[in-house]
Amino acid sequence: MLGIRFESSQGLSLTRQLCAQLRRQIESGQLPEGFRLPPTRKMAAELSISRNVVMESYEQLMAEGYLISRVGAGTFVAGGIKENTDRRAAENEKPVSGQDDASEDVIDFIAGAPDLALFPRKQWGKYLQQAVRDAEYTLLDYGDVRGDTELRKAIADYLFRMKGIQCRSEQIIIVSGSAEGFLLLSKALSAAFHSLCIEEPTVDFIRDIFKHMNYRLVPVPVDRHGMNVESLDQWEAGHLVLVTPSHQFPTGSVLSIQRRQRIIEMAERTGNYIMEDDYDSEFRFKGIPVPPLQTLAPSRVIHVGTFSKTLSPGLRIGYLVIPKQLVETVSEMKEQLHLHTPPILQRALARFIQDGHLDRHIHRMKAIYKQKRAYLVGQLHECFGKDMSVHGDEAGMHVQVEFAGSDSVQVPWEEAIRYGVKVHSVDSYSLLPGAYPGKLVFGYGHLRLDEIRVGIQRLKQFIAGQFPVIHEKKHSGS
Amino acid sequence: MLGIRFESSQGLSLTRQLCAQLRRQIESGQLPEGFRLPPTRKMAAELSISRNVVMESYEQLMAEGYLISRVGAGTFVAGGIKENTDRRAAENEKPVSGQDDASEDVIDFIAGAPDLALFPRKQWGKYLQQAVRDAEYTLLDYGDVRGDTELRKAIADYLFRMKGIQCRSEQIIIVSGSAEGFLLLSKALSAAFHSLCIEEPTVDFIRDIFKHMNYRLVPVPVDRHGMNVESLDQWEAGHLVLVTPSHQFPTGSVLSIQRRQRIIEMAERTGNYIMEDDYDSEFRFKGIPVPPLQTLAPSRVIHVGTFSKTLSPGLRIGYLVIPKQLVETVSEMKEQLHLHTPPILQRALARFIQDGHLDRHIHRMKAIYKQKRAYLVGQLHECFGKDMSVHGDEAGMHVQVEFAGSDSVQVPWEEAIRYGVKVHSVDSYSLLPGAYPGKLVFGYGHLRLDEIRVGIQRLKQFIAGQFPVIHEKKHSGS
Repeated sequence: MLGIRFESSQGLSLTRQLCAQLRRQIESGQLPEGFRLPPTRKMAAELSISRNVVMESYEQLMAEGYLISRVGAGTFVAGGIKENTDRRAAENEKPVSGQDDASEDVIDFIAGAPDLALFPRKQWGKYLQQAVRDAEYTLLDYGDVRGDTELRKAIADYLFRMKGIQCRSEQIIIVSGSAEGFLLLSKALSAAFHSLCIEEPTVDFIRDIFKHMNYRLVPVPVDRHGMNVESLDQWEAGHLVLVTPSHQFPTGSVLSIQRRQRIIEMAERTGNYIMEDDYDSEFRFKGIPVPPLQTLAPSRVIHVGTFSKTLSPGLRIGYLVIPKQLVETVSEMKEQLHLHTPPILQRALARFIQDGHLDRHIHRMKAIYKQKRAYLVGQLHECFGKDMSVHGDEAGMHVQVEFAGSDSVQVPWEEAIRYGVKVHSVDSYSLLPGAYPGKLVFGYGHLRLDEIRVGIQRLKQFIAGQFPVIHEKKHSGS
Repeated sequence: MLGIRFESSQGLSLTRQLCAQLRRQIESGQLPEGFRLPPTRKMAAELSISRNVVMESYEQLMAEGYLISRVGAGTFVAGGIKENTDRRAAENEKPVSGQDDASEDVIDFIAGAPDLALFPRKQWGKYLQQAVRDAEYTLLDYGDVRGDTELRKAIADYLFRMKGIQCRSEQIIIVSGSAEGFLLLSKALSAAFHSLCIEEPTVDFIRDIFKHMNYRLVPVPVDRHGMNVESLDQWEAGHLVLVTPSHQFPTGSVLSIQRRQRIIEMAERTGNYIMEDDYDSEFRFKGIPVPPLQTLAPSRVIHVGTFSKTLSPGLRIGYLVIPKQLVETVSEMKEQLHLHTPPILQRALARFIQDGHLDRHIHRMKAIYKQKRAYLVGQLHECFGKDMSVHGDEAGMHVQVEFAGSDSVQVPWEEAIRYGVKVHSVDSYSLLPGAYPGKLVFGYGHLRLDEIRVGIQRLKQFIAGQFPVIHEKKHSGS
């Protein structure tokens, strides 16, 4: 009847199959407007199915508008449905191309990746499970948009202990990674701010976010004392500034106290805000962490921190320390953009921190990163000697390296991948292409010592392979 | 010496304390520019601390710019540091006021909240712990910005099984809840689209997101066949449309097949896209789920789904099913906005779905929500009889209710809270205040049967308390 056929192989219920086939027949015009469907009893008998299935299907298709019922007359195909031939056709083309997976064998000196082999999986798993088991119902729901109260308290304590920041937990707002924090700030502050002063060079993802949120970007040069804030003397209201004062990315410089005071003065004069991106100040190998800019001017500085470096990027948990007068504005925008961080993750992290595991993990990783850095610098000196110098504060998970012999020529660093090593030029963090010839950033956090050694050797082979070519070119050009 | 004092009670290291006190003295002008600090050996002896602590502190403050060292002459306070008196002062004001917690005793018929008491905590905790234990390193990192491959496959299978959607897993993009999905879409499509047609009335948070992303909002009326798409006949390119075809929020209507075809035709003619917000189609009590709009036009419809209703809002996991030609655009914007969902959560959910737990949970909850709905409707009829009618498809976690006697007057529904019950008028989901007098939305997913009963009784008392007042007014006015 009506060419209906059931297939058990699809694993779909009879009602689903009957509805699907009737829909197709109506849409294809096989069953035209006004067509009277068989009474349910008759249809059921002919298809050898239960009458309930037929009744359910008719009701379903009435709810969807395919069928109408006229009392005492029966069930009919409704009007106004157009033919629809091949939209439901199976799609058999080639799959959309995915991202290329980097070859396993390439050693990538990408900056900012922590050592995830030492992530405390067992402990973290235990805290997660406990949080799921014990948490109150509200943690299964969206939770407080500003973040879990326990986590905000744990972070306030941590910030005093680790960075010397004195703030109330009410000033702390939890975000799903610092990136979401910047996205939130870009919207929350957009009523009064329209441009963003950024360090040149600097990390790319934050400036991309502000660009997409229609901010004008103003690059400010960086030297060995950090952002050259003197060039902001002409500042007027309406500007935000983004700095990495504790450990400039990628140059590694520390913003000097004189410049800190100056930029704060300017912010106070203009009513502008300073966003302090503190991505890795916990890992300083020579001394103690440099105090955050926030401690000098809690009312003008928004401190942005993350657990991506200290624990794992995959956690997607970061935090903002907000001046009191901004707490409401930022919280409200967070509510309106509906940006929530999974409350269970937050609670697990709160307990993990309270029980001292974060501090212990940082302490342990600091020794490891220090060793890796020293090893990398040693290998670089051994392979390149005086042709190379290392810059930046002894901190974090990256160093800036300058190759002296190559500053007059543009080495095609990206081609080193043919030698099995991936290196990253400072140019790739710059708005001014070609501004930093011979300068590279080496990340080492995620690499084993043997990988560091082999990677530097491959780089040496690549450079050795480059320079003859360069010399030849020079000859042919003369 | 220099008035330095150490306190063990703070739990801070001697280096930290020494640095902090020297910074304060320099910033306050007590130690002026050019002041020569005592040699490290002398300072250490006088303070009875290790010389290492003093050397470390001097080096630290040199790196921060407070001190300079002149070879053969000693260590001096640097120039250019201005006085900074009370910025570091402790902040002792009252805490910023937090959100008011709703009183425990109020029964809130808020719509869209699932029953979290039945969330499978034990199982979910187990899957989380296993994912943390077994996941490859990349899952501790950011992971694929488009989402975990396993989860995308599990969702593709689920969508075919549950909703009849045939798509490749490459078309699925994981988002941190549907809200983030809409935020992403608003930016990814902003090059070509500038206005958003929305149902009137509808849920508020999505339209807020698009408004903040500078879209113009165009309300389109809703009737018992869903969005009245005829009024879009004048559509030109540049418009997005947001619909809830399976179960309109809050009216509960199902978009008819005739209107489905019409809106798709319009989208094809103009090159516009339809965003299908499918927040709860899994829970349909009378028949099977209504097939998504996406199945009619996979190249014009963006299907937006969530696990907030089927599992828990606190998961913060949703998904987009994207037309093939948009996959790259949306993925790239996601990368540029740096929107990642915790990969460990994604993997745990993938396994949870693969092992059949999601389907079983939905099956179980469907029976429970069906029972709650029937109970609520029964209670409403019992209490209000013919003064009230219930509207909308038998699905999801809410019903729309219309009070006949009150459509000529504005009942101050928000005052029902004085009777211990919170109800929500359709007006609160509308851009046209006052357009829906007497219409309320009742959510029941999160309430126990006894709470539903008591809540409706309290509402009855409130209404009984209202109408005498209204009658008096009428008298006094005549």
